[in-house]
Amino acid sequence: MAGPVSSAPRTVEDIYKDYAARRAGLVRALTSDVDGFYSMCDPEKENLCLYGLPNGGWEVSLPVEEVPPEMPEPALGINFARDGMRRRDWLSLVAVHSDAWLVSVAFFFAAKLNGNDRKRLFNMINDHPSVYEIMADRKGRENNPGVDNSSKSRHSTKV
Amino acid sequence: MAGPVSSAPRTVEDIYKDYAARRAGLVRALTSDVDGFYSMCDPEKENLCLYGLPNGGWEVSLPVEEVPPEMPEPALGINFARDGMRRRDWLSLVAVHSDAWLVSVAFFFAAKLNGNDRKRLFNMINDHPSVYEIMADRKGRENNPGVDNSSKSRHSTKV
Repeated sequence: MAGPVSSAPRTVEDIYKDYAARRAGLVRALTSDVDGFYSMCDPEKENLCLYGLPNGGWEVSLPVEEVPPEMPEPALGINFARDGMRRRDWLSLVAVHSDAWLVSVAFFFAAKLNGNDRKRLFNMINDHPSVYEIMADRKGRENNPGVDNSSKSRHSTKV
Repeated sequence: MAGPVSSAPRTVEDIYKDYAARRAGLVRALTSDVDGFYSMCDPEKENLCLYGLPNGGWEVSLPVEEVPPEMPEPALGINFARDGMRRRDWLSLVAVHSDAWLVSVAFFFAAKLNGNDRKRLFNMINDHPSVYEIMADRKGRENNPGVDNSSKSRHSTKV
């Protein structure tokens, strides 16, 4: 599903590349692909998870069957909360869980790095706005469509 | 179980304090309390997780019942792997998953911090050796009992 650990990235650069690709997939799921993502998260279905993939894609699927998992798993059952919250609040919740998952995957792969390399990896990761910040930024724009609609570049974030 | 998010830490200092306490609990489970921890992780039992608690303790228990969870959950079913690996390898696996979980919890709570504060939080976290490093350090000492047995202070780590 999310790739076997046997091919897991091990250097700072490879872990960062894996992080950036998974993050891009999650951002896409929560922005340009959001209607498809939303409809896949049917509360009538079983426990679902949102995965960012190392190829830059995303998928909504059941958690891994075998435990303990090969790598950290994203929040389980995000679909069960979908209809009990405002859509934007639910998307923000998924974004916050996605950020926590992205960092857990990166530092799972980073287990054998030393402290300096972990710091370097974190700084590379932290140069991106979080998925939650991207959602919040969009939310701000959508809430004030007449105020600042023509100046998207001021709000543009490094995606 | 791991505390409701309504009382979740929100400042860098409070998130760090929560991190340090949970981490201390996990280190204890995997070092001084390791025999008790090991025996609790019976593969005949249901899916179990190792939680570091915000009071500095630890517990082995079932995952939360309600999903989506209020905060990131640790690796599920660690007990199922216990008897299929060498004890030290299994403990290392649990340590790596524990480090990934600790960082995911910290950055889940840090969702509303800005990039500078996230960086400051990470640097505070990264001043500690990882739980995995502590385990690896102990393993090295135990594998070479005659070589360096009297100089534990050279291997001492900030716990």
